[in-house]
Amino acid sequence: MLNKQGFHIAVMGATGAVGQQIIQTLEKRNFPISQLTLLSSARSAGTKLKFKDETITVQEAVPESFEGVDIALFSAGGSISQKFASEAVQRGAIVVDNTSAFRMDPEVPLVVPEVNEHKLKEHKGIIANPNCSTIQMVAALEPIQKAFGLKKVIVSTYQAVSGAGAEAIQELNDETNAILNNQEYKPAVLPVASGEKHYQIAFNAIPQIDTFTDNGFTFEEMKMINETKKIMEMPELKVAATCVRLPVETGHSESVYVELDREDLKVQDLWAVLSEAPGITLQDQPEEQIYPMPATAVGKDDVFVGRVRQDLDEKSGFHMWIVSDNLLKGAALNTIQIAESLIKLGLVTK
Amino acid sequence: MLNKQGFHIAVMGATGAVGQQIIQTLEKRNFPISQLTLLSSARSAGTKLKFKDETITVQEAVPESFEGVDIALFSAGGSISQKFASEAVQRGAIVVDNTSAFRMDPEVPLVVPEVNEHKLKEHKGIIANPNCSTIQMVAALEPIQKAFGLKKVIVSTYQAVSGAGAEAIQELNDETNAILNNQEYKPAVLPVASGEKHYQIAFNAIPQIDTFTDNGFTFEEMKMINETKKIMEMPELKVAATCVRLPVETGHSESVYVELDREDLKVQDLWAVLSEAPGITLQDQPEEQIYPMPATAVGKDDVFVGRVRQDLDEKSGFHMWIVSDNLLKGAALNTIQIAESLIKLGLVTK
Repeated sequence: MLNKQGFHIAVMGATGAVGQQIIQTLEKRNFPISQLTLLSSARSAGTKLKFKDETITVQEAVPESFEGVDIALFSAGGSISQKFASEAVQRGAIVVDNTSAFRMDPEVPLVVPEVNEHKLKEHKGIIANPNCSTIQMVAALEPIQKAFGLKKVIVSTYQAVSGAGAEAIQELNDETNAILNNQEYKPAVLPVASGEKHYQIAFNAIPQIDTFTDNGFTFEEMKMINETKKIMEMPELKVAATCVRLPVETGHSESVYVELDREDLKVQDLWAVLSEAPGITLQDQPEEQIYPMPATAVGKDDVFVGRVRQDLDEKSGFHMWIVSDNLLKGAALNTIQIAESLIKLGLVTK
Repeated sequence: MLNKQGFHIAVMGATGAVGQQIIQTLEKRNFPISQLTLLSSARSAGTKLKFKDETITVQEAVPESFEGVDIALFSAGGSISQKFASEAVQRGAIVVDNTSAFRMDPEVPLVVPEVNEHKLKEHKGIIANPNCSTIQMVAALEPIQKAFGLKKVIVSTYQAVSGAGAEAIQELNDETNAILNNQEYKPAVLPVASGEKHYQIAFNAIPQIDTFTDNGFTFEEMKMINETKKIMEMPELKVAATCVRLPVETGHSESVYVELDREDLKVQDLWAVLSEAPGITLQDQPEEQIYPMPATAVGKDDVFVGRVRQDLDEKSGFHMWIVSDNLLKGAALNTIQIAESLIKLGLVTK
């Protein structure tokens, strides 16, 4: 049932892996919607999708698609956002963009509501949703930073293929099937669909997500480094990342080492802060073999933190293991939480 | 063809994942063998295994099995090594033990031939083969330490199930098949066969290898920390590890951050050292998407290093990605290289 008191929402990239999650999450959270416009490229236009009791036909996006839209949720790749976001803003919509197109634009707030919701007030039409692997890390690090001060972060990621879209999920499944049945399979999507080389992801680990920059880090690694500093408003924070793709369908994991401002802390101090933090579930009972894993985090809203332990050499150093559903908190859910915050703060006008 | 000028070799745990690799590697390297005795528990005794043109029947191990044996290669679990290693030594054999039973014993050399072959001269009958994840890391770090001095290591591992034995490989395959066919599967082996809880490894990542110690690190993590210091003879080296099991059959990967003694180094300096190092293959051309992966390292002898890059904040800091076949250099090959070094150094008497 649509709600006449609600907002006109558009979802750009409605047929993609994240687009589908956005539609499901809007429904699950009973987001106040008076009209839902589903948009895609010409190729996917005509697809029929369910929302509550309605069947909605996906339309090909044109600039006029955004007439009357209050909030447009973009998740169709950076070039589509570059092309259509300003068209949507000109027509009065607020754009929440889930691509990397505007994230480092100093005019665009980059928001994880639990961390920096206040930045929404500075928006000029576009708000950027951070990279999936960044969101879950800053959600866990912000309460630690607030309580104890953060100096340094070194992260190694264990990322699911769904971060590379529905085609990558299909590739993982088809390739795994082929290998188990001793059949040939020619990878065509991972690590980077547009790249020259493609590698097997089934039963493998690929230390490349996105393309390489000149400094030897990938763009995915640089996103984690730069976005973390921007969201946490800590340009001097030391951050390093190694990003790795795994044969996991959904759920990103991160092995994170931090150095804090204080040397007098124990694991219990971090537990106390994390167990009270919004959007965080502490899963940390090693004696009971309780720790976060992608298989148990999938489909859940929270960021799960466990394996918290003090470094054996650095008194200010702690290690932890952070897992979240990359399609939910890492993408669709955070996008919708931004929209909810915009409404709560009175920043959306109908 | 057995070689009358060779040595009498015994393989303890001949039917296990590593035992099989030991037999194949002895054959591939044309190890000088006059007699090959294959041993196992009562359960696997009677199995017939091929070695060159011979078919050898696996016998149940008893103390007398080691009469006349020159070198006994043990890979049947710590409790079997505890029970039989001294029996073998009393009968004149040198034991190369691939379990954790004796690794931290100050009387027992812990050897990676490329790193500390000289320690073999101090042996008192037993020589320990390090943990798989440690071997490949120290093989890559030793040349860097020698050239530039090493201060600190932080490693996150991406470990294959074959490190947990043949049953874990079977579990990964059966479970993956079951999930792809929407069938139920009840895990019984991973993460720790003897543990109370077992978790799905297919399409998942489990941040537990071996059981937990009181400090929150697992025994696997403590093995990496303590064995690295012992092998590199650097008790003051700062080492931290997070060990994670992946749905990969064979090939361990490691995301390694190091801090060196010097601040004037560039990636090219590390490349120069690694490309000359014994047992190391540098695979580091990001612009060509060339980097190590388990799928390309499996079945190969070397340790592969790539993704070498300088930290963006610490001038003395470098990141790298180290991959090797955990059943070869991580286990069988290193065991046999130790035996070859013993012969080369004149330490085996017939």
